[in-house]
Amino acid sequence: MLSHGQGFDRPSQPLRAHNAIPRDQVLDAAHDLVIEVGLRGLTMADLARRADVSRATLYRTWPNVNGVVADLFTRDFHRALEGVVRGISGGDARTILVATTVGLVREIRRLPLLRRVIELDPQFLTPYILHRRGSSTREQARILEGLIRDGQNDGSIRAGDTAVLTAAVLLDAWAFVLTAPVFVEEDDLDALDEELTTMLERYLHP
Amino acid sequence: MLSHGQGFDRPSQPLRAHNAIPRDQVLDAAHDLVIEVGLRGLTMADLARRADVSRATLYRTWPNVNGVVADLFTRDFHRALEGVVRGISGGDARTILVATTVGLVREIRRLPLLRRVIELDPQFLTPYILHRRGSSTREQARILEGLIRDGQNDGSIRAGDTAVLTAAVLLDAWAFVLTAPVFVEEDDLDALDEELTTMLERYLHP
Repeated sequence: MLSHGQGFDRPSQPLRAHNAIPRDQVLDAAHDLVIEVGLRGLTMADLARRADVSRATLYRTWPNVNGVVADLFTRDFHRALEGVVRGISGGDARTILVATTVGLVREIRRLPLLRRVIELDPQFLTPYILHRRGSSTREQARILEGLIRDGQNDGSIRAGDTAVLTAAVLLDAWAFVLTAPVFVEEDDLDALDEELTTMLERYLHP
Repeated sequence: MLSHGQGFDRPSQPLRAHNAIPRDQVLDAAHDLVIEVGLRGLTMADLARRADVSRATLYRTWPNVNGVVADLFTRDFHRALEGVVRGISGGDARTILVATTVGLVREIRRLPLLRRVIELDPQFLTPYILHRRGSSTREQARILEGLIRDGQNDGSIRAGDTAVLTAAVLLDAWAFVLTAPVFVEEDDLDALDEELTTMLERYLHP
């Protein structure tokens, strides 16, 4: 999944089969730089230096820093997803959907990358909240819609337009990721995530 | 309620008893200007001219354009609230809370002022989504928390920490105001608002 390079916004080109660039090494370096200097301070030149690759090599995979940042968010999302899914022991589709969603909300909310962007470059997130879906959001919607369809098939999720149900769940999830820390104190976030579990359980129940 | 001048962010000073400024006339002029030139184009000089008051008069009530904009959002919010509440025929506290919340979401989402800010000055909203509560959000939380307490008293809303339940409902509401148009087509917004009704009904039910 990772090698497809689906980005937070604009995906970079898929990796070529013979591409020898140490992808994770570059993304690790980019991650460190964003934590240090923020998104706006990130340059391809600094990134090449920090990752110990040539600029030409870097440009063969990513046209610009936006492409790198997109892949960085996608990698974090996929790692969080894999971690959460590993921790789920099974159940019907609704149980799996709710546990996956709430687990991801908790993990993504505390990603150092996201915390730092919210702190230093909040305007980066504004278009995804107010104007258009990024490719990560579209991927999340595809995964969610598949789970909702599974649940409608196994009888654990109520009938209804899957696209609209998906949007409702995804709106909740992103609000609980991004805005929850604005509305409650840090100590109350766990209690709030329990509310999200109750809300989604009850909402999706047939 | 309006005369207290609680703002979207920083409330302006409460009006003095003998203040003769034609408040609504100024806010109407400010509304027209924001629709025409956006928040960033709004100046006290233009506003005084358009509202046909002296700059000195304007400054007696508002220290700067931010104070005017805060009161403008608050006036729109109160008008929407009054309109929605008038249309509600009664019921238990949960029924009233859900109808009020979903009605307000629908009205606020299509406010010309908000649409224009999302279009021209989206960065204005970023701090309220990612960093801190504005005074309008605090007022909304107070109203919601009162309704939740009423519902816990009349048995129509389940037990639980009222502050956390309030945050959960308010997170949903603002996500459905701001981000819903990003996630679904315009034609699906009514269907999505029905999902919000179902979600809040089921979530708050004892």
